[in-house]
Amino acid sequence: MSQNQFDKKSEAWSALFSEPMSDLVKRYTSSVFFDKRMWQADITGSLAHAEMLAAQKIIAADDLASIQKGMAQIWGEIESGAFEWKLDLEDVHLNIEARLTQLVGDAGKRLHTGRSRNDQVATDVRLWLRSEIDLISGLLIDLQKSLVEVAEKNVEVILPGFTHLQVAQPVSFAHHLLAYVEMFARDAERMADVRRRVNQLPLGAAALAGTTYPLDRERVAKTLGMDGVCQNSLDAVSDRDFAIEFTAAASLCMVHISRMSEELILWMSQNFSFIKIADRFTTGSSIMPQKKNPDVPELARGKTGRVVGHLMGLITLMKGQPLAYNKDNQEDKEPLFDTVDTLKDTLRIFSEMVGGQLNPATGQKEGGITVNAPAMEAAALKGYATATDLADYLVKKGLPFRDAHETVAHAVKAAISHQVDLSELPLQVLQEFNPSIEKDVYECLSLRGSLNARNTLGGTAPAQVRAQITRHQARLG
Amino acid sequence: MSQNQFDKKSEAWSALFSEPMSDLVKRYTSSVFFDKRMWQADITGSLAHAEMLAAQKIIAADDLASIQKGMAQIWGEIESGAFEWKLDLEDVHLNIEARLTQLVGDAGKRLHTGRSRNDQVATDVRLWLRSEIDLISGLLIDLQKSLVEVAEKNVEVILPGFTHLQVAQPVSFAHHLLAYVEMFARDAERMADVRRRVNQLPLGAAALAGTTYPLDRERVAKTLGMDGVCQNSLDAVSDRDFAIEFTAAASLCMVHISRMSEELILWMSQNFSFIKIADRFTTGSSIMPQKKNPDVPELARGKTGRVVGHLMGLITLMKGQPLAYNKDNQEDKEPLFDTVDTLKDTLRIFSEMVGGQLNPATGQKEGGITVNAPAMEAAALKGYATATDLADYLVKKGLPFRDAHETVAHAVKAAISHQVDLSELPLQVLQEFNPSIEKDVYECLSLRGSLNARNTLGGTAPAQVRAQITRHQARLG
Amino acid sequence: MSQNQFDKKSEAWSALFSEPMSDLVKRYTSSVFFDKRMWQADITGSLAHAEMLAAQKIIAADDLASIQKGMAQIWGEIESGAFEWKLDLEDVHLNIEARLTQLVGDAGKRLHTGRSRNDQVATDVRLWLRSEIDLISGLLIDLQKSLVEVAEKNVEVILPGFTHLQVAQPVSFAHHLLAYVEMFARDAERMADVRRRVNQLPLGAAALAGTTYPLDRERVAKTLGMDGVCQNSLDAVSDRDFAIEFTAAASLCMVHISRMSEELILWMSQNFSFIKIADRFTTGSSIMPQKKNPDVPELARGKTGRVVGHLMGLITLMKGQPLAYNKDNQEDKEPLFDTVDTLKDTLRIFSEMVGGQLNPATGQKEGGITVNAPAMEAAALKGYATATDLADYLVKKGLPFRDAHETVAHAVKAAISHQVDLSELPLQVLQEFNPSIEKDVYECLSLRGSLNARNTLGGTAPAQVRAQITRHQARLG
Amino acid sequence: MSQNQFDKKSEAWSALFSEPMSDLVKRYTSSVFFDKRMWQADITGSLAHAEMLAAQKIIAADDLASIQKGMAQIWGEIESGAFEWKLDLEDVHLNIEARLTQLVGDAGKRLHTGRSRNDQVATDVRLWLRSEIDLISGLLIDLQKSLVEVAEKNVEVILPGFTHLQVAQPVSFAHHLLAYVEMFARDAERMADVRRRVNQLPLGAAALAGTTYPLDRERVAKTLGMDGVCQNSLDAVSDRDFAIEFTAAASLCMVHISRMSEELILWMSQNFSFIKIADRFTTGSSIMPQKKNPDVPELARGKTGRVVGHLMGLITLMKGQPLAYNKDNQEDKEPLFDTVDTLKDTLRIFSEMVGGQLNPATGQKEGGITVNAPAMEAAALKGYATATDLADYLVKKGLPFRDAHETVAHAVKAAISHQVDLSELPLQVLQEFNPSIEKDVYECLSLRGSLNARNTLGGTAPAQVRAQITRHQARLG
Repeated sequence: MSQNQFDKKSEAWSALFSEPMSDLVKRYTSSVFFDKRMWQADITGSLAHAEMLAAQKIIAADDLASIQKGMAQIWGEIESGAFEWKLDLEDVHLNIEARLTQLVGDAGKRLHTGRSRNDQVATDVRLWLRSEIDLISGLLIDLQKSLVEVAEKNVEVILPGFTHLQVAQPVSFAHHLLAYVEMFARDAERMADVRRRVNQLPLGAAALAGTTYPLDRERVAKTLGMDGVCQNSLDAVSDRDFAIEFTAAASLCMVHISRMSEELILWMSQNFSFIKIADRFTTGSSIMPQKKNPDVPELARGKTGRVVGHLMGLITLMKGQPLAYNKDNQEDKEPLFDTVDTLKDTLRIFSEMVGGQLNPATGQKEGGITVNAPAMEAAALKGYATATDLADYLVKKGLPFRDAHETVAHAVKAAISHQVDLSELPLQVLQEFNPSIEKDVYECLSLRGSLNARNTLGGTAPAQVRAQITRHQARLG
Repeated sequence: MSQNQFDKKSEAWSALFSEPMSDLVKRYTSSVFFDKRMWQADITGSLAHAEMLAAQKIIAADDLASIQKGMAQIWGEIESGAFEWKLDLEDVHLNIEARLTQLVGDAGKRLHTGRSRNDQVATDVRLWLRSEIDLISGLLIDLQKSLVEVAEKNVEVILPGFTHLQVAQPVSFAHHLLAYVEMFARDAERMADVRRRVNQLPLGAAALAGTTYPLDRERVAKTLGMDGVCQNSLDAVSDRDFAIEFTAAASLCMVHISRMSEELILWMSQNFSFIKIADRFTTGSSIMPQKKNPDVPELARGKTGRVVGHLMGLITLMKGQPLAYNKDNQEDKEPLFDTVDTLKDTLRIFSEMVGGQLNPATGQKEGGITVNAPAMEAAALKGYATATDLADYLVKKGLPFRDAHETVAHAVKAAISHQVDLSELPLQVLQEFNPSIEKDVYECLSLRGSLNARNTLGGTAPAQVRAQITRHQARLG
Repeated sequence: MSQNQFDKKSEAWSALFSEPMSDLVKRYTSSVFFDKRMWQADITGSLAHAEMLAAQKIIAADDLASIQKGMAQIWGEIESGAFEWKLDLEDVHLNIEARLTQLVGDAGKRLHTGRSRNDQVATDVRLWLRSEIDLISGLLIDLQKSLVEVAEKNVEVILPGFTHLQVAQPVSFAHHLLAYVEMFARDAERMADVRRRVNQLPLGAAALAGTTYPLDRERVAKTLGMDGVCQNSLDAVSDRDFAIEFTAAASLCMVHISRMSEELILWMSQNFSFIKIADRFTTGSSIMPQKKNPDVPELARGKTGRVVGHLMGLITLMKGQPLAYNKDNQEDKEPLFDTVDTLKDTLRIFSEMVGGQLNPATGQKEGGITVNAPAMEAAALKGYATATDLADYLVKKGLPFRDAHETVAHAVKAAISHQVDLSELPLQVLQEFNPSIEKDVYECLSLRGSLNARNTLGGTAPAQVRAQITRHQARLG
Repeated sequence: MSQNQFDKKSEAWSALFSEPMSDLVKRYTSSVFFDKRMWQADITGSLAHAEMLAAQKIIAADDLASIQKGMAQIWGEIESGAFEWKLDLEDVHLNIEARLTQLVGDAGKRLHTGRSRNDQVATDVRLWLRSEIDLISGLLIDLQKSLVEVAEKNVEVILPGFTHLQVAQPVSFAHHLLAYVEMFARDAERMADVRRRVNQLPLGAAALAGTTYPLDRERVAKTLGMDGVCQNSLDAVSDRDFAIEFTAAASLCMVHISRMSEELILWMSQNFSFIKIADRFTTGSSIMPQKKNPDVPELARGKTGRVVGHLMGLITLMKGQPLAYNKDNQEDKEPLFDTVDTLKDTLRIFSEMVGGQLNPATGQKEGGITVNAPAMEAAALKGYATATDLADYLVKKGLPFRDAHETVAHAVKAAISHQVDLSELPLQVLQEFNPSIEKDVYECLSLRGSLNARNTLGGTAPAQVRAQITRHQARLG
């Protein structure tokens, strides 16, 4: 018998196979060139498995020591770039196991006792994704903090709140930014929910039915810091819910990013000119010398499609698969990896683009968005943004809201025909629409008066906005 | 001024509009024919709002009484079918408010004080979805119970566990069914997570910026049994995360249904004949007189596409929308409604198809799936399902697992060439592959021996399966 | 034997079935409430089939006459609303056939000779979709004509061409509109391509394998105006490519609509104010009396998600289905129907919103978009839109383009710091950047000079735009 | 002024920019590491552009010669791997242009005259995709030929035709394979349709508005072998319809692959055992020594999700983009590239897996699928596959079809209760169901009799199947 089963992988899978894979098939079916990024999870999982095998007397203490020594060497080889990844060995698991056997002989061959690649890969993906979710959660906090910092400086800055992209009512720019904080806070919550379902141990399910060795799966779960053990072996090896659920959560987060991007792009357009983003987040044109384009938000908006596409791909992948493991599942990794990379890069770049980066010399953040408050305020004056305030004024004078609404529509019509704002109509003209209108109406027709008046929980009045900022600061630490 | 603003809706929106909508536009933009199903949520939300307005002295106690009386009458009219829904009045909100004003006059016109349709519709959808999630959660429990009941009767029934649809190892049919219980249990968890994010109150955000009236939003939230109040008015009116998250959770649940359907269809195919489903879940053919087709699982598999399509539609809908409310959002309802309907019908029908329906006369469930245990066992004998057991046997004799694996590949090759099962090879032949093999090997080569041997947590051994059944029964109540 | 097999459908499918469908299952599996809209296609297809059966002597001439008479009566009943659709009879096919048998007895029972519902439904869907494609093609022409008409009136109107939503170069508003004509022209081309693949006859494939009767399939194809006969019976009954391809084409068309909608919404926003759309395509707000919201383009943008969702649903539906017909396919209809309805309504409404509707009194179209040329031109002056023209000017003076580009960047920088346009920099200042600049530079720095200069095929110069308008008018008839 | 504008790209875009891009932003926005694969198209397009510039006297003949010489050298450098791709230079276009300027000085700087990266990248993608479509079209022919070759050897092999995965009627295995030929033929047709719309020239649209130089765009189109010139500059730079349409066509093709894969996997499962695929397309298990898994069809089925995800991503990308070019569009390339790679690899591997590969020694193809005709025929005997034939027999005896159908249902019921096939019921028993049944009924109750009887166009009778094979052979060359 061969010293090492893996030496023959380039010939044929086992004695049962009459011919080796063709090169095209190898390329088509191998995963090592993308799944090798899970090598840390693979080694960590193997060590926890080996430690348990020894504790359960399934392998000898000597074997465990050899495996630990071999794995330490492999870890170093991979980190240093010395490790030779082989296409013939299909995936990260066989590459590492083959090298281990090369290094430590029979002990290496014993490592796979009581497990299969089916439960091994499921464990690796979960360990890897768990650590990525932790990184993403940190990045979501960073981005929220950036937004809150910019908000804190812009509580009194007024811009037009839009509905239907029509001027609706004046709002605080800080309030507007905090809307995104709410979205990213929900994203963080969802990530935490996903993490619970990711952090379950498939190892010990073996190929699909469990194993004949007296494994202690809860010990392995504890070693790996997992919240629990997958309770059904068939489900353990075939479940990819967690990847889909993660990608769905990532898609929603990218939808939020795309909405913010849409606004940043709009605000940078010359007809708005509400903000500028720092030059390092823009590019020029190869033909038009005057251009500074908001490439980063545009690309981020575009990358939403990418992540959503991965979600669709993963769902399509799993639809209609019979139990238990099918090779289709190998296609879970690339979309998952790319989703993680895209989301992390995007969150990182948005934190800095919005809030700037720390200047170590001054201890201050620099280079975030620049706010053009006069342009914002000028825009808020364009669309009769305080018409609702006039209606509310009339309600306080005793009109039913619906009648007040109709009265103000007439007043707006008159103002439009005179090409003036409501606040520019003389009192006498306003009184023609309703005699109860008095001089104090002009307070409520001003942008700032309107802003201050929306002083209930969640409203745009500066007092409310400051309270929200304080709440977020406490929450984000 | 008109007695009732709504009377003119068929002419023009307000004094500001110079012409009425064309009929085509009305049809294109109206939502009443699908959003009227939220009428209960709409009235419930309005009553909570009115009660708070009165408590806050924003409207008079008399007005509240009138509104309550009017709404009670409207509730009755809608329930009895007497209510006349008008396309001209666009949506459920204006239809009900217009009727209220017709019934109670000025009090009705005061109801809309401090709110907008933007926060009203967001509140309605959340209230409606919350109650649907509660129904779905119940249906998920029913389906899990059905599966556990059938599992309980089939612990000792052996079928081939497949990987890659190739015979892999023998598993208990109960174990196989419990894999689906795990999936639906995760679905129920996800629904509970979504519910928390659905159950937040947007009302009080008004159009987008909050309101000038001294609302007590927390009082309304409490009246409506909500977990909290949306903290940012812009986010409150534009957020549809909850709809997307729900549809993503529903998609995953349908993926599980589609996987089970795939297996049911396979198992009913003549080459398997593992099970039958009751005639009332099948249909015949208009041309082939012998056919009984598994229409229900096929349709359910197909309906997965429908729900996944809705998910994609909703994400596409929200991608790139600037704040705050845009009319695009009206398109959230039909996919959400259809997702709910599809999921509820499917879960209900699967519970009954799998577990049967209660016969009140006998107190027993009847008409669930019929299990053909001999066909299952015969199939498990076809693919050398106990080869892993032989490898494990050799490991226990001292071979490293990898060597044992290779040895067994040779043995399987020999068995194939003699067209016999491993258990049919004489001891002497087996010993040629490894001399340490003894007579006790035949125990581990039998299906039942193999099954019983996988006796670790999550494994298919009957003892483990029974423990899981007990756990589920306790959990499901 | 029963006089009419269909009488028993409410009991059980055939003698083979031991119990009737439950009501829930009936509702889940029946399609009659949505597929009845194909009744015309169903009758037309049946008549062509019957005519061929008679010509081939498979049924008697008397039978044909009876069938024709019965079908004529049924056609009338359905048109008048007198026809009673029964859930128990599952679908449009059995409803019509059952009624036929009721009316004409045995002749009706002979109609199904040599066909199955599998090939019948495939034929019906294709006939129905073909006629809808023809309607859509007409609507695409109407929309293109509307755009060309508005373009014709706005050749000399200048608005800023954007890239990255930053002012790039001045363009003719007509040129901008004609970009959409190109898109809708491609949509029309794609529809024509799809039509060819839709217009193939499945009838005669029977259940899946063809039939034992001497059918003349090509005769039926000719009767129905089809381009050919499906050449493989298994493919004929299971193929839904045409539905997916149509929905993909419809999705692209909706993407074009969504892009135009995005621009219409932007252009109506107060900071642009480039256009107005007629009041009848807008709605007001329940709370803000001043609002006129561009509901129609917003909804259209939203409905893109709906159609895209249907595409994804249909693809998911077909993925992984074995041959031949599976019940999953029944799920093809609702997304297809809704796609057709959405696309037709949207195209119709956009034609009118853009180009207005015919006033029969004047023979003129009225009520299309209103163009605010001064606002467009003012916006084009904001972002150094002629910078490229200055670079091109320098190239003509002998500079390599790349050097000219860099020189102009310096000039723009100076202009920005002086808060003036390039055309407002004195000659002497311009000459500091490059001494070859002469007085004629101001011609190329004007918007109109820039516009006129882009006078190559496909460019925005009015001469080119007029040539395109002429081409389109000839093409569209 | 700098000798070479590109030297400063690592500092800042142009004089207008105050700071260079951060490394994170560079990585986020650069495309060179994926778009460099279009280098041949980029050089080819540039040469055609330069040739026209010289012909139009926009650049000197000397400049053209320099550009041609420089490009020849760059072509060699890239082919040999000597070319140094720089992240700082963003994309394939600037990398090549910078190197050209380094090599040939001012002539290189003149190349970009009258074009922009916007029209350049659109041209490159179209040229690249056109050549890939041509490769794919060839692969589609190969796969069809493989299928036809296997079909030719299996005309008389009978397997059960399934509907609803229930045995329906006997069909020829060749007929079954030819159903896939129809699908791939349609895919090839769609590719040809897409190609027409891909093969249009955007070059000359410049940034978005055309150019001030007297370009001859039709000359460039002719040089590049294109079918026409994009007629509107705004559309030319922003249109990505062709990428979406191609990906939609690729998705449909993958859906066909996934359907075939589903069947191959099913047929290889032990309960079917209809076929074997060669060992080199399968893999073993790391734990189960007996396994040979159909990895290739499983992966291919899984990769369907990948391609469909790309389609969804691309549509989402374009939805709602205003004109003209936006940076979002850069995200079109990776999904398009991966779609092309996936489709080509899959088609290639399926051709060989189905039809085998040429043995140059024998001139024969070897190693395609192995057909187990007895297993297929045995399966066809299981489900009363000839019941329809009995009904047709009765129709020929004068019964209306519907009555015949019901009669046979009774006969099948009797056969099931006796656990025999219809053909095993004695004549006398059959006559109890209908006295007109005579001895010749047994001919039509046999599989082969049933097969031969379906002898109309598109049917499964061997005569029909052979005619189809002849037609395909003629068509495929």
